[in-house]
Amino acid sequence: MISRVSILGTGLLGASVGLALRAAGYKGALVGWNRSAEGGETALKAGAIDSLAADPIEAARASQVTVLAVPIYATLDFMEKLAGVLGPEQLVTDVGSTKRLITETGTRLYNTPERAAFLPGHPMAGKERGGASLGDANLFRGAVWLFTGDPEAKRSAQAAALVKEWREWVEKMGSKTLDLDATRHDELVAWVSHLPQFTATALSALLEEEVGGAPELKDVGGRALREMTRLGASPFSMWRDIAHTNTEAVERALAALEQRLAYLRENLRTPELRDEFERANKFRQE
Amino acid sequence: MISRVSILGTGLLGASVGLALRAAGYKGALVGWNRSAEGGETALKAGAIDSLAADPIEAARASQVTVLAVPIYATLDFMEKLAGVLGPEQLVTDVGSTKRLITETGTRLYNTPERAAFLPGHPMAGKERGGASLGDANLFRGAVWLFTGDPEAKRSAQAAALVKEWREWVEKMGSKTLDLDATRHDELVAWVSHLPQFTATALSALLEEEVGGAPELKDVGGRALREMTRLGASPFSMWRDIAHTNTEAVERALAALEQRLAYLRENLRTPELRDEFERANKFRQE
Repeated sequence: MISRVSILGTGLLGASVGLALRAAGYKGALVGWNRSAEGGETALKAGAIDSLAADPIEAARASQVTVLAVPIYATLDFMEKLAGVLGPEQLVTDVGSTKRLITETGTRLYNTPERAAFLPGHPMAGKERGGASLGDANLFRGAVWLFTGDPEAKRSAQAAALVKEWREWVEKMGSKTLDLDATRHDELVAWVSHLPQFTATALSALLEEEVGGAPELKDVGGRALREMTRLGASPFSMWRDIAHTNTEAVERALAALEQRLAYLRENLRTPELRDEFERANKFRQE
Repeated sequence: MISRVSILGTGLLGASVGLALRAAGYKGALVGWNRSAEGGETALKAGAIDSLAADPIEAARASQVTVLAVPIYATLDFMEKLAGVLGPEQLVTDVGSTKRLITETGTRLYNTPERAAFLPGHPMAGKERGGASLGDANLFRGAVWLFTGDPEAKRSAQAAALVKEWREWVEKMGSKTLDLDATRHDELVAWVSHLPQFTATALSALLEEEVGGAPELKDVGGRALREMTRLGASPFSMWRDIAHTNTEAVERALAALEQRLAYLRENLRTPELRDEFERANKFRQE
């Protein structure tokens, strides 16, 4: 039974994992580490972790489960470092937004009978701003938590039991789990997550140039404008790694939306506009 | 003092005007007319109007203030019909989403000392679905209600007093009023209202084709996806007239967003992406 978890990276997601585990009844130790001391202290004060580690590798070495809740390249970096020091009675999992590179690295360095297990995970939950202070025990409630691990992985019996138990904790945190292939994952999130984000960013940046100087004109847009640009507040620091590790799929999705907007623009006065509204209506009906 | 108002069109906006007037303390008569009898009955039952008229022209003729709350082309049609039967002791106003054509028609047919007044209005409030059943006394609370009338209009003293009093009622309904030129209005709403709508429509229609067949994949997108496609549910019947009466400004806004998305797509791996996120962040800061 899992009794010691370390969370490397106590930002919004890491802090929320700690708070949600506690709310779900987890009674074991929760050790945290964060690159900036301030974020770690905030998570500690909020009760998301119950102690702060000075060395993330030592913290992971002393834990049964290590949750990597750092940006994607930092996750890959930790995976390399931890693979050599952990053993078959240990599990590493992550919450990264793209999964192909991370899952390939997991297969390459983990998941043999002699090694630690790696379970690539992606909770579809977040906020447009990050940080430990926004940590929320209910962040994962009602969300889908995707896993992209190899179902054929030959793990040790202990590691397999940790994987099974961690998946149960994810469900206790209120999420619905869903397994899919890592490449399919990255294509899917390009459409349903990355495209909406980059659209909001492009729309917000464009409107900043067009009406940014006149705050009273933003009020004119009302709720619709606020909603369509809320994600414009998302930090580059998080989205850079996504743009770099899912470039081709995001390019395809953006190019498709550009074409769709051009089609709509060319048909503002033709009956095709009705068909486009009907397709959009259908997406919202189901 | 205004003691008899007719509302022609008791859909979402018309019904909300009736409910908001009552909530703001208006004690006079509220006569409604609606193209479909069912929508009129719904507004009557909800208390948005206190009687239903069989003939909209007769209802307007017997009122001091007539609120046109029908689609834009129907508004223009009523303006033509009413100009010949109303007099300088009467006011017509509207809630249409584009204002250039309506304001021009108002100047041509109204606003002389011998004629009725026309006050072109546009409350920046709405919902993604229409209908009297969604009527809401608080719809205009905190919203901006734009007026695009000619400040030099030579109205009769009675008509000018009605205009002044109607603007006071709009403020009592909870809106902030703002006057601007009709052409500038149409350019502005192309950016802050029409562009967000058509973007949501294009994104929703695209995603319907990409993932529409698999409802579980929509859940993956979570709150961000729901928010960015909520306006996808908006009805064509309302947006057709907007597309037809503000075509050039909407074309310019859509073309600008297409270019912006292409720029972002071409810079997913360059430092330009950071600048674009920073511009977007700035739009949300103020």
